[in-house]
Amino acid sequence: MRIDGRTSDERRKMNIFTDINKNAHGSVKISTGDTEVLCTAMLEKGVPPFLEGSGNGWLTAEYAMLPACTPMRKKRDTGKPDGRSVEIQRLIGRSLRGVCDFTGMGEYTIYIDCDVLNADGGTRTAAISGAFVALAICIDKALKNGSLSKSPIQKHVAAISAGIVENELLLDLCYVEDSAAQADMNLVASGDGIAEVQITGEKRTVSQQEFNGLMALCQKGVDEIIAIQKATLLTKEITI
Amino acid sequence: MRIDGRTSDERRKMNIFTDINKNAHGSVKISTGDTEVLCTAMLEKGVPPFLEGSGNGWLTAEYAMLPACTPMRKKRDTGKPDGRSVEIQRLIGRSLRGVCDFTGMGEYTIYIDCDVLNADGGTRTAAISGAFVALAICIDKALKNGSLSKSPIQKHVAAISAGIVENELLLDLCYVEDSAAQADMNLVASGDGIAEVQITGEKRTVSQQEFNGLMALCQKGVDEIIAIQKATLLTKEITI
Amino acid sequence: MRIDGRTSDERRKMNIFTDINKNAHGSVKISTGDTEVLCTAMLEKGVPPFLEGSGNGWLTAEYAMLPACTPMRKKRDTGKPDGRSVEIQRLIGRSLRGVCDFTGMGEYTIYIDCDVLNADGGTRTAAISGAFVALAICIDKALKNGSLSKSPIQKHVAAISAGIVENELLLDLCYVEDSAAQADMNLVASGDGIAEVQITGEKRTVSQQEFNGLMALCQKGVDEIIAIQKATLLTKEITI
Amino acid sequence: MRIDGRTSDERRKMNIFTDINKNAHGSVKISTGDTEVLCTAMLEKGVPPFLEGSGNGWLTAEYAMLPACTPMRKKRDTGKPDGRSVEIQRLIGRSLRGVCDFTGMGEYTIYIDCDVLNADGGTRTAAISGAFVALAICIDKALKNGSLSKSPIQKHVAAISAGIVENELLLDLCYVEDSAAQADMNLVASGDGIAEVQITGEKRTVSQQEFNGLMALCQKGVDEIIAIQKATLLTKEITI
Amino acid sequence: MRIDGRTSDERRKMNIFTDINKNAHGSVKISTGDTEVLCTAMLEKGVPPFLEGSGNGWLTAEYAMLPACTPMRKKRDTGKPDGRSVEIQRLIGRSLRGVCDFTGMGEYTIYIDCDVLNADGGTRTAAISGAFVALAICIDKALKNGSLSKSPIQKHVAAISAGIVENELLLDLCYVEDSAAQADMNLVASGDGIAEVQITGEKRTVSQQEFNGLMALCQKGVDEIIAIQKATLLTKEITI
Amino acid sequence: MRIDGRTSDERRKMNIFTDINKNAHGSVKISTGDTEVLCTAMLEKGVPPFLEGSGNGWLTAEYAMLPACTPMRKKRDTGKPDGRSVEIQRLIGRSLRGVCDFTGMGEYTIYIDCDVLNADGGTRTAAISGAFVALAICIDKALKNGSLSKSPIQKHVAAISAGIVENELLLDLCYVEDSAAQADMNLVASGDGIAEVQITGEKRTVSQQEFNGLMALCQKGVDEIIAIQKATLLTKEITI
Repeated sequence: MRIDGRTSDERRKMNIFTDINKNAHGSVKISTGDTEVLCTAMLEKGVPPFLEGSGNGWLTAEYAMLPACTPMRKKRDTGKPDGRSVEIQRLIGRSLRGVCDFTGMGEYTIYIDCDVLNADGGTRTAAISGAFVALAICIDKALKNGSLSKSPIQKHVAAISAGIVENELLLDLCYVEDSAAQADMNLVASGDGIAEVQITGEKRTVSQQEFNGLMALCQKGVDEIIAIQKATLLTKEITI
Repeated sequence: MRIDGRTSDERRKMNIFTDINKNAHGSVKISTGDTEVLCTAMLEKGVPPFLEGSGNGWLTAEYAMLPACTPMRKKRDTGKPDGRSVEIQRLIGRSLRGVCDFTGMGEYTIYIDCDVLNADGGTRTAAISGAFVALAICIDKALKNGSLSKSPIQKHVAAISAGIVENELLLDLCYVEDSAAQADMNLVASGDGIAEVQITGEKRTVSQQEFNGLMALCQKGVDEIIAIQKATLLTKEITI
Repeated sequence: MRIDGRTSDERRKMNIFTDINKNAHGSVKISTGDTEVLCTAMLEKGVPPFLEGSGNGWLTAEYAMLPACTPMRKKRDTGKPDGRSVEIQRLIGRSLRGVCDFTGMGEYTIYIDCDVLNADGGTRTAAISGAFVALAICIDKALKNGSLSKSPIQKHVAAISAGIVENELLLDLCYVEDSAAQADMNLVASGDGIAEVQITGEKRTVSQQEFNGLMALCQKGVDEIIAIQKATLLTKEITI
Repeated sequence: MRIDGRTSDERRKMNIFTDINKNAHGSVKISTGDTEVLCTAMLEKGVPPFLEGSGNGWLTAEYAMLPACTPMRKKRDTGKPDGRSVEIQRLIGRSLRGVCDFTGMGEYTIYIDCDVLNADGGTRTAAISGAFVALAICIDKALKNGSLSKSPIQKHVAAISAGIVENELLLDLCYVEDSAAQADMNLVASGDGIAEVQITGEKRTVSQQEFNGLMALCQKGVDEIIAIQKATLLTKEITI
Repeated sequence: MRIDGRTSDERRKMNIFTDINKNAHGSVKISTGDTEVLCTAMLEKGVPPFLEGSGNGWLTAEYAMLPACTPMRKKRDTGKPDGRSVEIQRLIGRSLRGVCDFTGMGEYTIYIDCDVLNADGGTRTAAISGAFVALAICIDKALKNGSLSKSPIQKHVAAISAGIVENELLLDLCYVEDSAAQADMNLVASGDGIAEVQITGEKRTVSQQEFNGLMALCQKGVDEIIAIQKATLLTKEITI
Repeated sequence: MRIDGRTSDERRKMNIFTDINKNAHGSVKISTGDTEVLCTAMLEKGVPPFLEGSGNGWLTAEYAMLPACTPMRKKRDTGKPDGRSVEIQRLIGRSLRGVCDFTGMGEYTIYIDCDVLNADGGTRTAAISGAFVALAICIDKALKNGSLSKSPIQKHVAAISAGIVENELLLDLCYVEDSAAQADMNLVASGDGIAEVQITGEKRTVSQQEFNGLMALCQKGVDEIIAIQKATLLTKEITI
């Protein structure tokens, strides 16, 4: 049995609270176990230089850990950005762009900001799952107030991790499990396909069979999270 | 009457929620009207070079606005810190150090982090008032778990703003009032004295009589906030 | 009696030398005791983005300490600007803008540069008092050569400090006094009103009565310095 | 048929030239088609702070594109490192550390530098495959001159990409194919297991069947590259 | 006799290999003894602000050492550029601009990049001599494809060093000689005149007679290198 | 005749005022015509890492232009240092180290700071000539107060420029001449030898005969400046 009593294919309890920040165009606080991430979406005029004049939109993401989100204070990323943060914010941006079509949306940029309030493993996947909901709320608002005339969102996207701990395959690692993991996978997927898989085995490589097992666990988790996203959006009468 | 129906000497409603972040040593979310700031306190071993070997402690503060806290997204302070943020975090640090005595506390640094979740005027004064409570909770925890043997805190400290709008003196300006203000004051005070006054009249200078009026408004506001701080800490059985 | 023989309400001897740098549009070297600051003003075409197209002008200030201005060499502010310098240059800019009206001046920016040649306490207040004179000379030159058709300057502004040392209230602290001060105040004022007050009590808070005493000392000092500014400008036949 | 006449499961021709830089401890120039990367390995005393006193070693990697490696000049990464480069160099580092055991190696750091001389797709995977050989040469030299007494290398590691272009699965994409790809995968693997998989579908998600097909192509490619690595090292009488 | 058997006025063997990088517009690998530098030239649209609207072109240069070019790894110039590199790249830029006339060339910038592959003394002079050839190839290509209608190049330029070692004057110092040198000179010259001389005597000053001797050695060396440049370009049927 | 009535081999009038800054260990204000530079020298404990434990000293220099030293305001070098400033401060440092012997001086670093108060051509050479005097005063003070037991200074060093304007050779170019110069030379020399020559011909190359003529002019100028340095130091009873 796992440290927190879960079975090997059991996610931690997830909550998605919406409309957290009054000024944000879309905002959610997503928690999975003790991991808690604030995700906001802001729609602004203007696009990066390579899109100017195209009539198309863009989406970009930033990820940061608030200093007190870990048991030892983590310094802010000023000056030189932390390599890990760079990697994660690029992943978040790609994941959301992958389920959007910005063609003809107008020259707007959607800024996604994911700030970790409390960290207990799985912050990057929680950020993706939460950011999707913040994005959907932001777009819905823009459609209603007439800033946008059609939604760029094509389908849902969510993410979760799985890992190998003492040679056992486990879904949704908490920090203690993650620290002990021999290898871990992050899956980003929509309901009908794989958007991104990262599997990292710093301690050892992973066999094809283990790989398939981790994929199956993650697929199950992503399906469940997409159901939670849909229910959350339904409370605001938003359907993708 | 004011835009939100308050009288000229009336503060906005303040709430202080404690224990917001599981990993933080002390944390509060303070709100005054629509302004909302997350304040955390972390106690860590080590002091700046000028205190090494002294046996004394230190306190330092950082202040940042989350990107979606304003109606237009605010860029993060990476690379070159924003002048306004530098000014504010120095003010927060001085204000809290002014009510502490770190002599013989042991070589620990207390890191205060104030992150603005939503901005509607008065973020710096809310940060000070909230950070004091986070500090008190952090110290209480350290006394209970034996990291510290005596508290550096000598008395309460809180802060509030007042300003002159259309020649009328008003307490606790919201953003719309602040934008229209001819001059504004920030008072940081403990129950029995003045810690810091900043009065800025970019649009015009202020007469001695107006100055006295602003001071009286702020003193009233600080006294009320200190009462709220005390009540909040009492719920956790903490007395300074 | 004070370390340098002054009475408690006595300023250090102040000198303002004008036209120090041939290429500068306005320049003074101001000294108060052993503190010596070079203040220059340069009028350049162009304004910050938020004023483009407005037809109005702007003023901005920078403050730096030359490396050999202190007994131990002070590193230059390259890369990350020093928090204290940021705070001071923002104060200088606000203080001068507070006595100017840039409406309809044309889209020019006045750059104020204050470089400390020798530091013995009170560099920020000396910088403000000197920068005002450099500004007046710069504007006078621009009026005479036709760059500007009206002066933005509405009235004088000067600044001075006072502090509490061993519970005694003293005007214009030198470095040794400043280091021993329990609290200190900086007052920026024009002849007819208060522009900015900063009172800092890092070692203890200040009672209302002490506060009033410090204000009275500073008001006296500012009045004397404005008289010196006027006399200095008269030698160049400039009246505000 | 593909743009350069290859079949769908055919790699581009790979060359690994060794001992390119006289001063480097280990160096290779690896080319795959028109992609050409210089990989060097340097063994230096000292480890990062978190390993000091452990008696263990470490490996870290940097990746950069020389400015003229692309048809339009690419600016150097000065000041703010490019997000893509950060992501790639972290991948290279993890990949090589994954096949090493630094326990008891002594407190040395191996610095891997991968500089792209010419870019035509697949630079990151070529960098990993080449860097492994540079590492092996560097370690062999250190064993022979007595700096090290045992090799940290446990097994081979190599990498290759595959992608979906017009719904066809292709191995080892060149730049033109990569630009048109609907999704692409990078596989890092040793002979007996998977070290890291990254699959990115910015244009669309990928079905499970396509995923399996891409994995099979990449596995084939990695096996072939490991054979080339072994042959290259044999010419220098090095066996892992 | 010298460490590598040369006479005092003998250069090291020089090789210039052309067309090293497929994507570069002009590229050479120049070696002199064990010093090896990759020099590339890229022609891009656009000029610095001070030339916009002039119809004239510009040339700028960058110089860097690859990390493994020295026996101990050299850190990359990220963040703060190394003073020595700044000095050298300014020298390379001035040297090449000195033999060009960009008037009426059209608003193009030529970017020269010199990356040291292996360092054994004389990298800056090798960079200049090689960069000239890369420039000539780049311009020739632009003339042939019609981007440019006339060449900015007016004459050849090359560079070499000489130094005083144990009071003996030596041409083209290798690293060991350079480290022991009492003074050293770098001469940049065209066939008919001096472009730049730098003589540095950190260990001692240099007499007028020694100065003349060093100049004569360098003049001889530059003449020989220009002959090599001409022969190299002739193989590509390029004449200046 | 020249713009300011000088003959071709005539320097501008030079003044060296000593003891400018009370806190500086050595300080001079040097002027040549309208060029004015503040040079200070500070002696501090500690040496760069490569000298730790050697018992030897070191000297390093910084150069900056104050913003109002030119007719158009010059931005401060914050963030990325200006290439020209880097080049100049390296030249100043080398020039002074070239006439010093730091062996056995104790582990002290002498910091030279040269800040241009007004710029009218020749700031770098004035900086060197003035910095030498500031250095001599600083060392003299350290010998007298016992910080040092022997002086590192071995001989005088001074610098001056010459140039070719409309094919005429001129000594000590002012700004207007410098802007029109076809080529210019900076000579750094001690009484008995050449320390550094930089000759730059961005507009054209220089013949051997012109080169010799410029050298002769500069040698004459340096000899005269060394005489002024000696006279200045004699007023403080300092002899090298």
